[in-house]
Amino acid sequence: MIQIAVLGHGVVGSGVVEVLGQNAAHIAHKAGEGIEVKRILDLRSFPDLPYADRFTTSFDDIVNDADIRIVVETMGGLHPAYDYVKAALENGKSVVTSNKELVAAKGDELLAIAKKNNLNFLFEASVGGGIPILRPLDQCLSANNVTEIAGILNGTTNFMLTRMLGDNMDFDEALALAQSLGYAERDPSADVDGHDACRKICILASLAFGKHVYPDQVHTEGIRNLTLADVAYAAACDSVIKLIGRVVVDGDKVHSIVAPMMVPNTCLLSGVSDVFNAVMVRGDAVGDTVFYGRGAGKLPTASAVVADVIDEVKHFKARKYLYWEQGAADYVLPAATYTCRSLLRVKAADGLLENLSNVQVVTYDGAPADELAVLTEPMTEDAVDALIRESGATLINRIRMMDL
Amino acid sequence: MIQIAVLGHGVVGSGVVEVLGQNAAHIAHKAGEGIEVKRILDLRSFPDLPYADRFTTSFDDIVNDADIRIVVETMGGLHPAYDYVKAALENGKSVVTSNKELVAAKGDELLAIAKKNNLNFLFEASVGGGIPILRPLDQCLSANNVTEIAGILNGTTNFMLTRMLGDNMDFDEALALAQSLGYAERDPSADVDGHDACRKICILASLAFGKHVYPDQVHTEGIRNLTLADVAYAAACDSVIKLIGRVVVDGDKVHSIVAPMMVPNTCLLSGVSDVFNAVMVRGDAVGDTVFYGRGAGKLPTASAVVADVIDEVKHFKARKYLYWEQGAADYVLPAATYTCRSLLRVKAADGLLENLSNVQVVTYDGAPADELAVLTEPMTEDAVDALIRESGATLINRIRMMDL
Repeated sequence: MIQIAVLGHGVVGSGVVEVLGQNAAHIAHKAGEGIEVKRILDLRSFPDLPYADRFTTSFDDIVNDADIRIVVETMGGLHPAYDYVKAALENGKSVVTSNKELVAAKGDELLAIAKKNNLNFLFEASVGGGIPILRPLDQCLSANNVTEIAGILNGTTNFMLTRMLGDNMDFDEALALAQSLGYAERDPSADVDGHDACRKICILASLAFGKHVYPDQVHTEGIRNLTLADVAYAAACDSVIKLIGRVVVDGDKVHSIVAPMMVPNTCLLSGVSDVFNAVMVRGDAVGDTVFYGRGAGKLPTASAVVADVIDEVKHFKARKYLYWEQGAADYVLPAATYTCRSLLRVKAADGLLENLSNVQVVTYDGAPADELAVLTEPMTEDAVDALIRESGATLINRIRMMDL
Repeated sequence: MIQIAVLGHGVVGSGVVEVLGQNAAHIAHKAGEGIEVKRILDLRSFPDLPYADRFTTSFDDIVNDADIRIVVETMGGLHPAYDYVKAALENGKSVVTSNKELVAAKGDELLAIAKKNNLNFLFEASVGGGIPILRPLDQCLSANNVTEIAGILNGTTNFMLTRMLGDNMDFDEALALAQSLGYAERDPSADVDGHDACRKICILASLAFGKHVYPDQVHTEGIRNLTLADVAYAAACDSVIKLIGRVVVDGDKVHSIVAPMMVPNTCLLSGVSDVFNAVMVRGDAVGDTVFYGRGAGKLPTASAVVADVIDEVKHFKARKYLYWEQGAADYVLPAATYTCRSLLRVKAADGLLENLSNVQVVTYDGAPADELAVLTEPMTEDAVDALIRESGATLINRIRMMDL
C-alpha cells in the first residue's frame, strides 16, 4: 500500500480523496499497488467526514513522515504551495500538483529539484483540467517538431462567451450568471482578464519547446471590453469569439499571446462551448490534433491528479522524462511583432477606411450606424497601431482573427 | 545508438524512415539515445534511395540480428505480419506496429508473449493514425472507470460522408472522388463496409476494459446503402450522418457496434469533417473527452509509430503496463439488445405510422412523396425488427441515432 498526502481539502483536494476512495480497486489494479491517503493538510477541520482523523494543520506532519511517498498539492496560489512543494521534493517525496499558478511561475526550478533528487513532479491537471494534454504532448507527439499550440484554456470565460453568443447576454449579465452557477469567483479577474489562460499557455509552451515561458512575458488581454456588437461582427466574419491562448514557434524563439480572437467556424475550436476546454497542437508530422474535455470541476480535475499519482507509483524507480529548462528574457518575441488579421471598429466619421487597401468591410443587420468595421490583411501589432495613429481614426475595438 | 528494423516500406514504413531521419536530433533528445534503421524488409528493392543498402528480403536477417532491439511492423494484413511479430517477440525484440488488423485479431496473444518475455508491444498508430489515443486512454484516464467510447474511426468514409453532405454527391460519386484522391483503395470494402472501423473499436474496447473484443463479435454495417435522402432526413433531425464505432459498458459485459449513425449537431463529433478522425471517451470522473486529428496518412501515422519507438527505447528495462486479457464468447452482448432511437423510412402506403406511439414524424422540403419517415423512441434492435414485421411496413432504410 502506497501512502500519500493531500495538501488542501478544497474542491480539487476533496475530489482527489473521493476518486481514490470510489475507484480504489480499479486504481490499485492500474497502479499495481493500493493507494491510501494518510494525511490531509487543511487549516479547517472536517469532523463529520469518515476520514476526519487524517487531517492535520501542520505540514511538518507530512514532510517528516517517511511513509508518505507522494505529496499531492491542490491548495492553489504561490505561497505556501511553492514552499511546501519544494520542501517535499527536497525530502524525497514525489509531487503531483493541479496548481497552474505554481507551475507557470516556478516549473523550471521545481523540475530541476525533482530531477536532482531523482523524483517525479507531475502536473497534468494544471492545464485543461481532466483533459489529457501534457502527457500526450510530451510522449505521444514526441516524434514531431511542434510548431504551434492554440487553445480555449479557461472554462469560465468560454461559458460567458457562449452565453453572449447564444443568449444575447452582455458581458455583465454573463458574468453574473457564471458567478451564480459557481463557475466564476466573486473576484473574477483571474478568469476574465486572461491570467488563468496565460498560466496555462505558459505551461504548454514550456513543455512543448523545452524552455520556460513566464506569465509576464506573454501579452495578455481578457474579455472585459467585448460587447454584443463584437460578437455580431465576428458572426459576419463566419467566426465566433473565443479567449485563445496561443504560442507559435518563430526560429529559435516563440510568439505567445492571450486574447479574445475570432475563430473561423471551419475550425474545430469554434464548436467548443460552455465550460469545455480544447487545445490544438500542430506538429510537423502529425498535422493538427485537438484535445477536448472538461477544463475544470472537482472530479475531472481530480481524475487528472489521480492519473499522475498512479503514474508516479509506477515510476518510483524509473523517473519520468518530463522536463524543461530555465527561460530567458529574449526568448519570447515582443507582442508588437505578432502578425494576424484584425477586425478594426472605428468611428464612421474618421475616414480610416479610405486609407486602407486590401481590407474587407464588415457589417451586419443592425450594426451601429455611427461606425465602420474592417477586417485587415495580416499585419503586425505595430503596423496596426501605426495605421490607427496615422489615419487619425478613433478605435472603438480591435479583435484579432485566429489565422491557422 | 539504438538499432531498429522496419518491416514493409509502403506508405507508413517509408514515413517512419523519413521521420526518423528528418527529426533525428529532436528524437535522440527525446529518447535519450539516437535511433538508427539498420534493416528494412521489403520484397521490392529501392536502388535509388540513399539507404538502399539497408533493404533485405529475408526476415531471418532481422530476427537473427542481436543488434536489432526493436522491430517496427508496417506491412498490414494478418500474414506474414503475425508470424514475424510473434517471432520478433519470442527472440527478445520489442515491437511497434501500425497494423490494426493484426492487433484486433491477435492483440491478446501478442501482449501475453510480450509480457512473458518482458518486452514491449505498442501500437498507438493502429487507431486514429497520428492522434494520441491509446496511451491517454491507458494512462491519463487511468483514475476513471471508462463507461463508453464512440468515434469516427475511418477517414475515407468520413471524407465521403462530408462530400455527400456538403456537395450533394451520391455514394458512388463520393467513392470515385475518394479513390481519385488516393483516400480509398480500388477495392474499398475494408473502409466502406466498416471493417476498418470495427478493428479500431475492438482495439479501443480491449484496452479500455481489459478484455479482448474480437472483430467478429461486433455488429458491423458500412455506408454503402446511404443515400442523399438519408443525409437530408438527418439534417431535419438536426444531425449529420457519421460512420460511428461505439462500445458501451453494460454491467460486466459490453455492447459494441459499427454503423452509420445520426450524430446531433450539438455533439463535437458532428463537426469532424473530411479525412479527420475523432474519438470520444466517457469516464466516470472526467466526463467526456475527445481526441481529434488525422486518422491516416504517411506522416501522421509515422508520427505515432516513432513516438512508440521512442517510448520503447526509454523502457527497455521498465516494461510498459499496456495489457489486456483474452476475450470470451459471451462478453460482447448480442446486437439485438442494443438500444437507441432510430430513423425509420417506410413506404407511405404501408400505414406503419399509425401503429406507433411516441414517434416523431420527420420530413424535409423535397422529401420523397411516396414514403414516411419517423424517429422512434429508444428501442432495442429486436423491438424495431418486431415493429416493422408486425406493421407489415416495407422498410426503405433505417439509421440509428447516436444518443449519448
